[in-house]
Amino acid sequence: MNIDTGISQVKRLLLNCDMGESFGSWRMGLDAEVMPYIDCANIACGYHAGDPGTMRRTVALALEHGVTIGAHPAYPDLVGFGRRSMACSSEEIRDLLHYQIGALDGICKVQGSRVAYIKPHGALYNDMMADPQKLRAVLEAVAAYDGNLPLMLMATADNSAAQALGDEIGVPLWFEAFADRAYTASGHLVSRRLPGAVHHDPALVVEQALRLARGEALVADNGSAVGLNASTLCVHGDNESSVAAVRQIRQALDALELP
Amino acid sequence: MNIDTGISQVKRLLLNCDMGESFGSWRMGLDAEVMPYIDCANIACGYHAGDPGTMRRTVALALEHGVTIGAHPAYPDLVGFGRRSMACSSEEIRDLLHYQIGALDGICKVQGSRVAYIKPHGALYNDMMADPQKLRAVLEAVAAYDGNLPLMLMATADNSAAQALGDEIGVPLWFEAFADRAYTASGHLVSRRLPGAVHHDPALVVEQALRLARGEALVADNGSAVGLNASTLCVHGDNESSVAAVRQIRQALDALELP
Amino acid sequence: MNIDTGISQVKRLLLNCDMGESFGSWRMGLDAEVMPYIDCANIACGYHAGDPGTMRRTVALALEHGVTIGAHPAYPDLVGFGRRSMACSSEEIRDLLHYQIGALDGICKVQGSRVAYIKPHGALYNDMMADPQKLRAVLEAVAAYDGNLPLMLMATADNSAAQALGDEIGVPLWFEAFADRAYTASGHLVSRRLPGAVHHDPALVVEQALRLARGEALVADNGSAVGLNASTLCVHGDNESSVAAVRQIRQALDALELP
Amino acid sequence: MNIDTGISQVKRLLLNCDMGESFGSWRMGLDAEVMPYIDCANIACGYHAGDPGTMRRTVALALEHGVTIGAHPAYPDLVGFGRRSMACSSEEIRDLLHYQIGALDGICKVQGSRVAYIKPHGALYNDMMADPQKLRAVLEAVAAYDGNLPLMLMATADNSAAQALGDEIGVPLWFEAFADRAYTASGHLVSRRLPGAVHHDPALVVEQALRLARGEALVADNGSAVGLNASTLCVHGDNESSVAAVRQIRQALDALELP
Repeated sequence: MNIDTGISQVKRLLLNCDMGESFGSWRMGLDAEVMPYIDCANIACGYHAGDPGTMRRTVALALEHGVTIGAHPAYPDLVGFGRRSMACSSEEIRDLLHYQIGALDGICKVQGSRVAYIKPHGALYNDMMADPQKLRAVLEAVAAYDGNLPLMLMATADNSAAQALGDEIGVPLWFEAFADRAYTASGHLVSRRLPGAVHHDPALVVEQALRLARGEALVADNGSAVGLNASTLCVHGDNESSVAAVRQIRQALDALELP
Repeated sequence: MNIDTGISQVKRLLLNCDMGESFGSWRMGLDAEVMPYIDCANIACGYHAGDPGTMRRTVALALEHGVTIGAHPAYPDLVGFGRRSMACSSEEIRDLLHYQIGALDGICKVQGSRVAYIKPHGALYNDMMADPQKLRAVLEAVAAYDGNLPLMLMATADNSAAQALGDEIGVPLWFEAFADRAYTASGHLVSRRLPGAVHHDPALVVEQALRLARGEALVADNGSAVGLNASTLCVHGDNESSVAAVRQIRQALDALELP
Repeated sequence: MNIDTGISQVKRLLLNCDMGESFGSWRMGLDAEVMPYIDCANIACGYHAGDPGTMRRTVALALEHGVTIGAHPAYPDLVGFGRRSMACSSEEIRDLLHYQIGALDGICKVQGSRVAYIKPHGALYNDMMADPQKLRAVLEAVAAYDGNLPLMLMATADNSAAQALGDEIGVPLWFEAFADRAYTASGHLVSRRLPGAVHHDPALVVEQALRLARGEALVADNGSAVGLNASTLCVHGDNESSVAAVRQIRQALDALELP
Repeated sequence: MNIDTGISQVKRLLLNCDMGESFGSWRMGLDAEVMPYIDCANIACGYHAGDPGTMRRTVALALEHGVTIGAHPAYPDLVGFGRRSMACSSEEIRDLLHYQIGALDGICKVQGSRVAYIKPHGALYNDMMADPQKLRAVLEAVAAYDGNLPLMLMATADNSAAQALGDEIGVPLWFEAFADRAYTASGHLVSRRLPGAVHHDPALVVEQALRLARGEALVADNGSAVGLNASTLCVHGDNESSVAAVRQIRQALDALELP
């Protein structure tokens, strides 16, 4: 597996998953169950989830399974799990990213590892996708930290604007897609408030993963074809059924990649 | 100036000062006024003070003045300013140190610098001095992060136990003394609750700084002589008079060091 | 307008001031200096400022000077001082209001007093003024807590929409104006980013206070007349000059009210 | 003993249970499952667990089942779940109690209820039992808030010292015992680090509950008899088996109380 490059050289669809979202005495996510099947762990950095002990254990688990470690920074909002947009300035976004990435990097360093990419969490991720000014703030923050670190963000039917900004600022981009979500014709996720937004049929989920891996178009919610140029697939370890889905996706992708 | 070694090679008494202890909209400390006169800035890491923006600005100020940057980690207690002891396990202490050191290191990295030593804050510092188990936890955490990073701790009349532990674990130690505090015969600080604990006469403060720099004994509160083998002096930037004292100490030490 | 609380028969423009905005070891505001001159203290409740000890001391100070106590609740954002808008649902706004009002009421109760009105802080205040859905959420929360508690909000040239909502939900409204800020023709504050937004001339500030007290129109930034139907004036205790302004406003208003 | 609150004429052993210990997106405890079987809900107040929304839902659930509501305040330590002792002064303990009790009372008030007793949580509870100075601080805080509110604390073989302090300060005491824990001859809990500290056999748990209800002595870990004068039993809703135990205890106690 070769992960340290931009999207163009990626030969397989990496599976990324949010990890380390427990906090203190509270457990969340079946990290130990899902870690064996993924490639990239987006590890919470303490602002929406993840205390120092949880971060240490999650890093250790990732390393045990050879999983690449990404920082999963968020707005400072434990009660809201980082899902509430906050009116942060570009400067505030830069600073909170550096703090969180650095904290996770410190915990990685102790275990002989390091942060290998950045994926903002929740509302920060959504704001970055919706507002070019915030995407710029995130990209500049990543570049200032380490210009070799890729930023993971949402693939749509047209990644060109984001790609142009990434190229300008000098940050490699990893575009991610979802196997279990319906897409609009423009390659955006169908809102969870609408029927059919989430695929519950495992066969459908695996089929969508395979299409994405083969670079084939998906069928959008209006029936048109939508192509997503994605190098990674976001999967979930929330519960037993999502872990089962990850296992099936893993097996299907592995079979696909056999020579 | 040569600071990257243990106490034995230190040729001058470094001035260290707690810095970056503002938080959000709240200001604390005259950092800009005192930074020109010190050698080492103990920068708060967000647990007792210091948000990401404050940390960035404090690192920039330190670099502007060629001041060495140390991490000043604490128990997680903003309301109590890290001054209330918390019953943390050795594992918890290790984890919270790595998180905070890493966070500051991330902010330093963006500015082309790095954390060069560690000085625990407040109750964590006191607990480390009072409990060998906690000192061991701190030393092991520092060694795990970077075995070249010195730990700054309190000089007493007999540093041998701490030095033995530092040697065993492989962490250089920087012992610090105070120019403005009275000492007991065992080389501990006289409690602030007792009269005469704090020197308010600037001449007395400068005199004590010079004695420490020359390696001369101080007069303890019981009249006996007490020797402190210190390589750094802790000074304060809380207010105008403490900054004035730092300036005087700086001038006196500079004069002393002239060939 | 009928202010149905302790301050019966309101003939005068009440002076309200944000108070208790220190936090832990950090000081903010000259509370002791300004308290003698104000009528209503908007006391921070721990979410943007104000820890339990600060709240207790601020309540005591208010009671000592016979000042009416208001709750000054905010979004949960200490680092941002409650000034960053957060995408909270109406339910979340209701809950965080009840928590903070209750906490301050508990601290008042111990001192034989109680919260007498509510004034949201910072971004929550701004969001409430800009978004009728959020104003409704705040009003319903206040009504659910105690239908006799007034809500303090911004006076504009036309308070009718807010008044209608207050009447519908059954919450008395206290409209506030500013003596030190320029107004637009619609009775909104001129943005601080524009020149002339803040009056720095004490004479001008006192003159505007007197006009508001007499129910006279102000001159808007475009030269037109703008009437503000306000029952309270928001003043500031941040620094010596703002405290001096409060003293002058107090004296001018007291002179005005002499028979 | 006279429990002068809503539950008048106490003839039975009240079952109390920690509730509302979820936080934001994190779930903890089977509150809905266990609430039907208990008498008193110790509801977290935001310092170790429990955000405003969780508190509101937990109060609603308690009221739905006619369960008496107690405040379960803690040291400010979300990461440590309030289980780490903090060196708080008596004044700090008083203030943090008033803040948390008030916050819960505010949320109760909106639902037409109120806090009916106080049970400190975790390390604050342990410190209060171990240190008479801290017990005094807690009792004085409760008395200052409302002298009719009982304090719930640990029953031992000799409650007289605590009772004397409660009488002096004027706070009713509710002593609690455990059905699932072994006791020493002095009526203290056998440390969880020792074998046999926790009863896992449901029959044994029920038997101990019945003995306590009948006022009979237990067999201490050294074989001697130990009497515990308890008016309430602490039960747990952490998982399915603990809820099953509560159901069995409830049935056994109900049967016992039949005329």
